[in-house]
Amino acid sequence: MPASRVIVIGATGTIGGAVADALRRNGHDVVRAARSGPVRVDVADPAAIDALFAAVRDVDAVVCCAASGALTPLDTASDAAYTTGLDGKLLGQITLVRRALHHLRDGGSVTITSGRFDRPLPGSSFGALVNAGLDAFVRAAAPELPRGLRLNAVSPGWVRETLRHLGMDDGPGTPAADVARAYLTAVEGTVQGRVLTP
Amino acid sequence: MPASRVIVIGATGTIGGAVADALRRNGHDVVRAARSGPVRVDVADPAAIDALFAAVRDVDAVVCCAASGALTPLDTASDAAYTTGLDGKLLGQITLVRRALHHLRDGGSVTITSGRFDRPLPGSSFGALVNAGLDAFVRAAAPELPRGLRLNAVSPGWVRETLRHLGMDDGPGTPAADVARAYLTAVEGTVQGRVLTP
Ligand SMILES: NC(=O)c1ccc[n+]([C@@H]2O[C@H](COP(=O)([O-])OP(=O)(O)OC[C@H]3O[C@@H](n4cnc5c(N)ncnc54)[C@H](OP(=O)(O)O)[C@@H]3O)[C@@H](O)[C@H]2O)c1
Ligand SMILES: NC(=O)c1ccc[n+]([C@@H]2O[C@H](COP(=O)([O-])OP(=O)(O)OC[C@H]3O[C@@H](n4cnc5c(N)ncnc54)[C@H](OP(=O)(O)O)[C@@H]3O)[C@@H](O)[C@H]2O)c1
Repeated sequence: MPASRVIVIGATGTIGGAVADALRRNGHDVVRAARSGPVRVDVADPAAIDALFAAVRDVDAVVCCAASGALTPLDTASDAAYTTGLDGKLLGQITLVRRALHHLRDGGSVTITSGRFDRPLPGSSFGALVNAGLDAFVRAAAPELPRGLRLNAVSPGWVRETLRHLGMDDGPGTPAADVARAYLTAVEGTVQGRVLTP
Repeated sequence: MPASRVIVIGATGTIGGAVADALRRNGHDVVRAARSGPVRVDVADPAAIDALFAAVRDVDAVVCCAASGALTPLDTASDAAYTTGLDGKLLGQITLVRRALHHLRDGGSVTITSGRFDRPLPGSSFGALVNAGLDAFVRAAAPELPRGLRLNAVSPGWVRETLRHLGMDDGPGTPAADVARAYLTAVEGTVQGRVLTP
């Protein structure tokens, strides 16, 4: 595909940084967004998403690698603490898709991030809901997109740099640069309604 | 299993009515709850769930067949209208599970309801998220349950009575009484962390 303008939300993060770098190397015009830094957006805030699309025009693709959840045991006392990730990762990414519908150039794409727990992990029940919900959303929503728009999710397992950061050097983990290649496939290719599992 | 006390939430509905009747026929003490009627609860309201468990004691099992979503096209104008089913069907059933943890008798069970779209259906993207999210939640949360508690989901396809009500007499659909049998399996059997697909 010809070079395009791509917003990467979460571009200061482990995955988003690798994605933004990889897109840049392929010649795209990358707009790096996060809650701090020059281009700001909080995906948990629909008005902030509107403001982003008002400020950054002629966008071909949006990639979101932002707004993670956290491990929360089922008996976590507060409902709000149990549902960490609801407003940002789950509803925020859905709002982003719904807004992008009206702002992306014809034939553009949205790529969101879910994730997967390859082994059962205590405290993962709400995260599992968020990830499976996002994957199902992508598969069901893609056929409804107008103007040749595409929608995909990347569902990474543990990222090597993240495990290292957590002091788990022995975990295999996928290098962020390899995870980033799945986002390039989603942005530059023709895949539609797919969940990519790097 | 010996007869037990079972709360059925949504007991005035198509599926819940069939479930409550089937449990009653098997000799269980059935407490029929809904937003109207003698035993009231709104699953979208955590305080109402607390009040239900304060009022109805010595409960062995809770079954929830309440609080459906609606078909909502991806470009539905309002975010709140697009996410119909979020507070009740998705978060409400999760709150119900989290509260039931502390109130059910040892070895008791919670059975929630998801659903499935066997064919791609326009407007199903948020419903697909809710259903897949609930199924994944059940699988991930069951291993965390204390005191021998069990958690399962029933994921019905279209119910015959519902299709008839919608004027689609020709649709195959599963009779509500057959769907109810899956709930009996969940309440009376030993299944754990499963998604039953009647
Ligand atoms: N790393 C892994 O092993 C792994 C595995 C599976 C799935 N994932 C998923 O991949 C995504 C990215 O993970 P990551 O490890 O790269 O995260 P990360 O290193 O913590 O980076 C998160 C990025 O998102 C931004 N951000 C956080 N909340 C935001 C919000 N509400 N609105 C806008 N930007 C926000 C952060 O910057 P600001 O804080 O300045 O906003 C940062 O740029 C998450 O959804 C995560 O669950 C990660
Ligand atoms: N019927 C189908 O074909 C089908 C297929 C797949 C999945 N499902 C799912 O199965 C579940 C039950 O469906 P149904 O067709 O039996 O529904 P229904 O006939 O509309 O009955 C819903 C029941 O839930 C109660 N209810 C609704 N909202 C509630 C709330 N917030 N709190 C407590 N009770 C509430 C209703 O009574 P009040 O209004 O008085 O509260 C009624 O008793 C839903 O989750 C639905 O999505 C149904």
